[in-house]
Amino acid sequence: MRKFKIPPLVEAAAEAAAVRQARLTKPLGSLGLLEDAACRMAGIQGSATPSASNRWIVVAASDHGVTEEGVSAYPPEVTAQMVHNFLNGGAAINVLARQAGASLIVVDAGIRSPVASGSPGFRSTSAGRGTANFARAPAMSRGQAELCVSNGAEVAEELGENRAHIVALGDMGIGNTASATAITAAMTGTDPALITGRGAGLDDAGLDRKAATIRAALELHGPDPDDPLGVLSLVGGFEIGFLAGLMLGASERRIAIALDGYIVTSAALIAHALEPRSADYMFACHLSAEPGHRVGLDRLGLEPLLDLKLRLGEGSGAALGIMIIEAAVKLHNEMSTFEEAAVSGRVRGDP
Amino acid sequence: MRKFKIPPLVEAAAEAAAVRQARLTKPLGSLGLLEDAACRMAGIQGSATPSASNRWIVVAASDHGVTEEGVSAYPPEVTAQMVHNFLNGGAAINVLARQAGASLIVVDAGIRSPVASGSPGFRSTSAGRGTANFARAPAMSRGQAELCVSNGAEVAEELGENRAHIVALGDMGIGNTASATAITAAMTGTDPALITGRGAGLDDAGLDRKAATIRAALELHGPDPDDPLGVLSLVGGFEIGFLAGLMLGASERRIAIALDGYIVTSAALIAHALEPRSADYMFACHLSAEPGHRVGLDRLGLEPLLDLKLRLGEGSGAALGIMIIEAAVKLHNEMSTFEEAAVSGRVRGDP
Repeated sequence: MRKFKIPPLVEAAAEAAAVRQARLTKPLGSLGLLEDAACRMAGIQGSATPSASNRWIVVAASDHGVTEEGVSAYPPEVTAQMVHNFLNGGAAINVLARQAGASLIVVDAGIRSPVASGSPGFRSTSAGRGTANFARAPAMSRGQAELCVSNGAEVAEELGENRAHIVALGDMGIGNTASATAITAAMTGTDPALITGRGAGLDDAGLDRKAATIRAALELHGPDPDDPLGVLSLVGGFEIGFLAGLMLGASERRIAIALDGYIVTSAALIAHALEPRSADYMFACHLSAEPGHRVGLDRLGLEPLLDLKLRLGEGSGAALGIMIIEAAVKLHNEMSTFEEAAVSGRVRGDP
Repeated sequence: MRKFKIPPLVEAAAEAAAVRQARLTKPLGSLGLLEDAACRMAGIQGSATPSASNRWIVVAASDHGVTEEGVSAYPPEVTAQMVHNFLNGGAAINVLARQAGASLIVVDAGIRSPVASGSPGFRSTSAGRGTANFARAPAMSRGQAELCVSNGAEVAEELGENRAHIVALGDMGIGNTASATAITAAMTGTDPALITGRGAGLDDAGLDRKAATIRAALELHGPDPDDPLGVLSLVGGFEIGFLAGLMLGASERRIAIALDGYIVTSAALIAHALEPRSADYMFACHLSAEPGHRVGLDRLGLEPLLDLKLRLGEGSGAALGIMIIEAAVKLHNEMSTFEEAAVSGRVRGDP
């Protein structure tokens, strides 16, 4: 796997954006997190007046052998069925992509039965036909882990050619909250019992089974957090590796990354461990209802923009997030300054 | 002042919407607060497939005599200056109205020096030329309180004629966080020292002065929470009364109401006390950085959609909120059902 060369943020541009924020017709700081988002977009793009007009959403799908352990409320064939739903425009992410004015790419990153589609928004870059059951064996080989990361980086290259400003990332994969939990536990040293959630809607018995399965798998494999590709190969998923690679490639090209929930954030933990600077390009869009999500965001040092109790995946929270980031950038660029609007400044208080 | 006749929500429509939510291609509940918002919109409109396509924003502005006490970081002339900024399209709310696809109405509800404008989005319905200083005298007469409520209801009538589905409400008025704090304290029985905030950016000395001013005014006037028009006349503002009247009129016409922050919520406390059913039509869009906002929302029984640390006013948080509510309604109407998309249902867990 090639080395990713991620540039630092352009501090001068972020500082120039902060100066502009102080001149806009509003009390300084009164746009809260939107001011921070605009300034970070400036640093990402190296421009005091950044843009979020070229918006993309990439949803990566793959299957998980661990579903054999009864850790999901839905049968594994739903992964491919939902991919067809994405391609037919009937899923949540399609509705949100239309509202957000974003181009949607759907990726088969490793679905059990290959999806055939001539849709222009479909990419088949499979690293395997579903992972092995990580309760019994490594989820994938190290070569497959490298391949799915490289596949993600290739789609980032395509986004770069299209001059994308921001990409919202989503996942689809029955069983993948089990994988995200194992990754989050391994990368942060957290007891999996504390962060195992109900995923798409497990009952109490299923929840206990899922937590026990993850704990036993971590004991079986002993993943090393200093070897993120090793963690990916032992307990990861093809879509998770793909998303990590896409994040690394996007960071190289100064494309902002809008994280969705728990699964995408587990991919971000892999990307961040491979290249810590990639986190500078990430925005946490929402806080998932899955209990382990906050643990992952804390490791990345990110604060979520939204808390709407979502737990769908597909990039749904990230799609809403890019609307908020679009608002932040438009406010930054389009508002008048105090001088332009002939509005008086403050008479008391700081600054 | 006339009596407002607010219809109850249509429970059958809200229930039919909940049935539809359970059939959409997502785990039940996985869209969190968006599912709740869609179902409430159904109850408001009396339709299992409600719409949020006809969106409006109304920003009401007026001046406050209490600025004489040095309770604001900005001079009072900024109220009129910002109204001109709104009419020229350079303020935050203009940017957000464009992004949200909402029609914007700017109202002079009682600015000190009358604003003259031929802009089609401007309404002059002044109830007076700025309130009196409530630290020394009632802010307005009871007749003025009734007049500004009636003025707001008239604009609601116009929204009804335009078949609005939802209206986001905003405020502009230097000094109005002092009035909102006095109202919130009076209506909820909260010690004003606990809920006095920095408004547009007061320093520590200004904050102490503001809290002392509000406490002394409440002792001077002794407002009665069972007489909401009395509270409005003693310590309120013309824009606050206007917004309360607009809420009551919108509720009568089954128009959903998107609340902004602290000032708009203080108006909601007045509307709710006059007609408790009006709160069924309200959405709390964001949690303001002002400490008293949560106290007001708790009284109304509303949970905010967003927490972006905004403290601008102008309807900025409400404008972002109507984008979220639009997403909720579009997801509800446009997503495929499990049957339509041929996606399998769950194998374990409830329901």
